[in-house]
Amino acid sequence: MKINDISENVIRRLPRYLRMLDALLEQGRPRVSSADLGEMLGFTPSQVRQDFNTFGSFGQQGYGYSVLELRSGIASILGIDGERNAIMIGAGHIGLALMENLNFEQYGVHLTAAFEVDPDKIGKEINGIPVYSASSLEQYLVENKVDIAVLTVPKHIAREAAERIQKCNVNVFWNFTNVDLAEPGTDVIFENIHFSDSLSTLCYYITAKRERETFTEK
Amino acid sequence: MKINDISENVIRRLPRYLRMLDALLEQGRPRVSSADLGEMLGFTPSQVRQDFNTFGSFGQQGYGYSVLELRSGIASILGIDGERNAIMIGAGHIGLALMENLNFEQYGVHLTAAFEVDPDKIGKEINGIPVYSASSLEQYLVENKVDIAVLTVPKHIAREAAERIQKCNVNVFWNFTNVDLAEPGTDVIFENIHFSDSLSTLCYYITAKRERETFTEK
Repeated sequence: MKINDISENVIRRLPRYLRMLDALLEQGRPRVSSADLGEMLGFTPSQVRQDFNTFGSFGQQGYGYSVLELRSGIASILGIDGERNAIMIGAGHIGLALMENLNFEQYGVHLTAAFEVDPDKIGKEINGIPVYSASSLEQYLVENKVDIAVLTVPKHIAREAAERIQKCNVNVFWNFTNVDLAEPGTDVIFENIHFSDSLSTLCYYITAKRERETFTEK
Repeated sequence: MKINDISENVIRRLPRYLRMLDALLEQGRPRVSSADLGEMLGFTPSQVRQDFNTFGSFGQQGYGYSVLELRSGIASILGIDGERNAIMIGAGHIGLALMENLNFEQYGVHLTAAFEVDPDKIGKEINGIPVYSASSLEQYLVENKVDIAVLTVPKHIAREAAERIQKCNVNVFWNFTNVDLAEPGTDVIFENIHFSDSLSTLCYYITAKRERETFTEK
């Protein structure tokens, strides 16, 4: 099966399997059943089996899955076994949080540089990553192969920053700006982390829980 | 229709509609068609109509939707027109980014306090929010009504922090720790922002795009 035929819902579950499998590897567990994996993630065993069947066979009925094989199969579908270069646009709170805490290499991504306007940060290194002046962005993009731009700039300059980068033929964005930058119909990739969407969803879960409780009390 | 009967996929789209409608309100647009809304978000018009039909009728065929009515209908389903108190656990990079940049009030959430271990931050205010010592957390939870705990502490103390808070009867978490804290079968709510899941998904989109391009070239 071509990876383009996998549904968005399955795609969104793959990273969660991956995270769980990494935890099992750390614990030294060689095999895992669909029932156990499902329980850890809140999925039914049949959902787990169905997901894995979508892209090939990783296990044998009754024997469970090899954690290592499954991990590498999912990693390969996600393409996190690739080699990609990323740059960080903005070294404010979010940029710093990512540079200091996220293990990009674990996902096949090399974070090679950060760009800032704050003179106190320019010329320094953050967790080994050099911070350059935002004014040298275009020159850097001409001289270096960059696959992903991580956008962590303030809202009001989000669009301008994305446009500058697209002009230099970088068309993949990890977008933390809370601005919808996607242009439907183009082949530019935006993966967005919208904090406000997540907060709204949380509010919904509270509302739904209260409704359930009210219903139960009656 | 009960809000508990709405599918997770619809729920996840509601905040995106909301964000778009807020943008339209800012632009002063009174009405919007399902076609226009769909185009802005990359959904088909029929998907938009179907989503809105799930929870009632907000528009009339051919006239489009009233932006204000639709906004308030969605806000009410999400429950972001409620009054909830939240506290921030941790005032590091992520905590600071949220306190300084996210308009919690827009989602009916009052951020009333932050808790930290760093003596340089304790006793100060960040964007009007008092920062207290983490050791006073339990006392604060006894004396104040808190609905949501925003977890932005480092990974290794994530579980301990969540347990302390649950012992004080706060059972709703907005979780930025990259640790899976959910316990299936309990009624504790965890809304997670997993940066790594998003990065994996982004890698998948790049892989899928390359596959499409390779296929096209042949």
